[in-house]
Amino acid sequence: MRIVQKFGGTSVGSIERIQETAKIVQKELANGSEVAVVVSAMSGETNRLLALAHGMNDNPPAREVDALLATGEQVTASLLAIALNKLGVPAYAFSGGQAGFKTEGNHAKARIQSVESDHLIAHLKNGEVPVVTGFQGVNALGHVTTLGRGGSDTSAVALAIAVQADCCDIYTDVDGIYTTDPRIEPKARKMDSISYEEMLEFASLGAKVLQTRSVELGMRYNMPIHLRSSFHLIEGTRVTKEDSNMERAEISGIAYNRDEAKVTIKGIPDQPGIAAAVFCPVAAADINVDVIVQNISEDGLTDLTFTVPRSDYSATLKLLNTLCLEMNAREVRGDDTVAKVSIIGVGMRSHAGVAKKMFEVLAKENINIQMITTSEIKVTVVLEEKYVELAVRSLHKAFGLEAA
Amino acid sequence: MRIVQKFGGTSVGSIERIQETAKIVQKELANGSEVAVVVSAMSGETNRLLALAHGMNDNPPAREVDALLATGEQVTASLLAIALNKLGVPAYAFSGGQAGFKTEGNHAKARIQSVESDHLIAHLKNGEVPVVTGFQGVNALGHVTTLGRGGSDTSAVALAIAVQADCCDIYTDVDGIYTTDPRIEPKARKMDSISYEEMLEFASLGAKVLQTRSVELGMRYNMPIHLRSSFHLIEGTRVTKEDSNMERAEISGIAYNRDEAKVTIKGIPDQPGIAAAVFCPVAAADINVDVIVQNISEDGLTDLTFTVPRSDYSATLKLLNTLCLEMNAREVRGDDTVAKVSIIGVGMRSHAGVAKKMFEVLAKENINIQMITTSEIKVTVVLEEKYVELAVRSLHKAFGLEAA
Repeated sequence: MRIVQKFGGTSVGSIERIQETAKIVQKELANGSEVAVVVSAMSGETNRLLALAHGMNDNPPAREVDALLATGEQVTASLLAIALNKLGVPAYAFSGGQAGFKTEGNHAKARIQSVESDHLIAHLKNGEVPVVTGFQGVNALGHVTTLGRGGSDTSAVALAIAVQADCCDIYTDVDGIYTTDPRIEPKARKMDSISYEEMLEFASLGAKVLQTRSVELGMRYNMPIHLRSSFHLIEGTRVTKEDSNMERAEISGIAYNRDEAKVTIKGIPDQPGIAAAVFCPVAAADINVDVIVQNISEDGLTDLTFTVPRSDYSATLKLLNTLCLEMNAREVRGDDTVAKVSIIGVGMRSHAGVAKKMFEVLAKENINIQMITTSEIKVTVVLEEKYVELAVRSLHKAFGLEAA
Repeated sequence: MRIVQKFGGTSVGSIERIQETAKIVQKELANGSEVAVVVSAMSGETNRLLALAHGMNDNPPAREVDALLATGEQVTASLLAIALNKLGVPAYAFSGGQAGFKTEGNHAKARIQSVESDHLIAHLKNGEVPVVTGFQGVNALGHVTTLGRGGSDTSAVALAIAVQADCCDIYTDVDGIYTTDPRIEPKARKMDSISYEEMLEFASLGAKVLQTRSVELGMRYNMPIHLRSSFHLIEGTRVTKEDSNMERAEISGIAYNRDEAKVTIKGIPDQPGIAAAVFCPVAAADINVDVIVQNISEDGLTDLTFTVPRSDYSATLKLLNTLCLEMNAREVRGDDTVAKVSIIGVGMRSHAGVAKKMFEVLAKENINIQMITTSEIKVTVVLEEKYVELAVRSLHKAFGLEAA
């Protein structure tokens, strides 16, 4: 087996944690695996460096900030290599550029273009451990670039693809992905596996355990991602290609998000271009629109409802009130005590009536559904925030997701 | 004018100091100069990183330590570039590798092989400031290497040569080189200029303001080095090629070193190979021998006296006592209360009797000379430590070095 292991900031946050991390690497080698490692900066280090930069310049140039931040992972990579050598494991630190990460696009949010890591494969075959800085590369000019926050997950998956690893293990501070939030439903069950598509839906709903880009990359190259805890060395959740031979449950899990607000612009004269007239200024104000529903027209007038993050609620209302006048619409209404609950699962493709079952479960609990959207593997409802726990628990039970 | 400015750890030791340093760069640009900058790590940072490494591994691999330590200068270079941009000065940070520093030899004490900095010249011509990390480069394998403590001075001179600068300004916490230590002789005078050869003699006597390698490099390529203070922007001391047209004083300055101990092995049977028999084991014990005097033979026996750093005194005595038995010599004597006083100056080449004058001055003060060595531009005497101040002051006056 050839494994790429990725360790986040808390796994390398101190001398002691780095030593523990070195033992995890050593254990994997003892299993007979070849191991390459990707590390983040020590927790807090990126913020410390940013504070230094902003202490001198409110608007520091992105190229220089990238060169500055990249040192955070370089320190961790060197320290982990030093800890591994102490355990008798030959290990070498590589910066993003040294490891062959070529990027394109802007500083601070560069995208990986290619990873030229043949020299690392030679180390792997010798039983040596390359320790590679996550989150960074060099662009065509040879300048250091960073991939944006959380980019180390993406670095790890990209490296796994480049060195043709069998799996990319992402070590973090959670055990894996659960059928729903265990703080709401104690019977939530850790999933053994989940498809890339499902993981993307979970991630988009606020499960911040894996960067979306890393999942997309894994999906495109079919690289299995094993999400697991660096504190308890037990099996986590494997994010893999959907297994068509497997009997699938109707749904895999339930996600929710409380950070929602709903706005409605009512009685808009229904004519071509109204959606653009509303959403262009909203986008221009950098407001991230999520669920959108447009009712059918009645007497030549229609209603348009959509959700935004709560932090954008008041700005959105202000903007819509101006638009309301300009468009000669009737009124604007809003509600910032709504939430979103989604059921997710590739099983929906083969099981009919999953959405209907969801609506019945909620109706039985007298929970009013305000908005509905669906995708191929997800049904999302918007409801009053106070019903979130009840909705999640009822759905978790009705769809049979409890731990055995 | 094209200038390379080098700033040491205290000049970039805090946000405030970095901002002051940025102003010095800006001022030089305002003079119409093109400016490239070389920086050290923030004072204390290299030691902090070393402590992290040694906290995990008593004997960390040199390659990994180099990669770790190199981040220190990278942080400073980025921060200074950010500070310069804040002042409206376009500036870009470059690591040693990015700036084109190729090194050879071992990690932790690599030597600069070449500097391929044509891309930096393009920035200079645009009025942009490359901010380059001192102390580091990459070797033929692409691994990060460091030049050893104080290597940033050497980086700066090498960069000045590579970009064909007119001068390399080394900013430090002293105003320049003085005719002697002002703590001993308040009338000591800051020298406007000094030749490379003289500077090397001063440096070898413990004037730690410039790394010896940087002076040798400046001498070989005839790159003027301007040693000056980053706290007071006044003219410092220029280290340059000896100007043969200038009337030279007999000597340029007086140096001393208290860190001396003297050992004598007496009554050695005088036969070929005795020097090797003594100094091979001494060198093998990593003891740094300085002044050596061998008396003429008498009755087939000779005496051999040499000085070592005081920290090596007891180890040297122990070693010599063993050798004394083996070589059938008479006895070993030692004294760790000696010091060295040197007069230095290229003027000696054209002025006769400089050494004689030195001996006369010391004799007049009843100071006994224990050992003498001379080079083309230096006369060194070993004497009792308690006479150091008197000797320095008498010589300073007799050779007319006082401030006008």
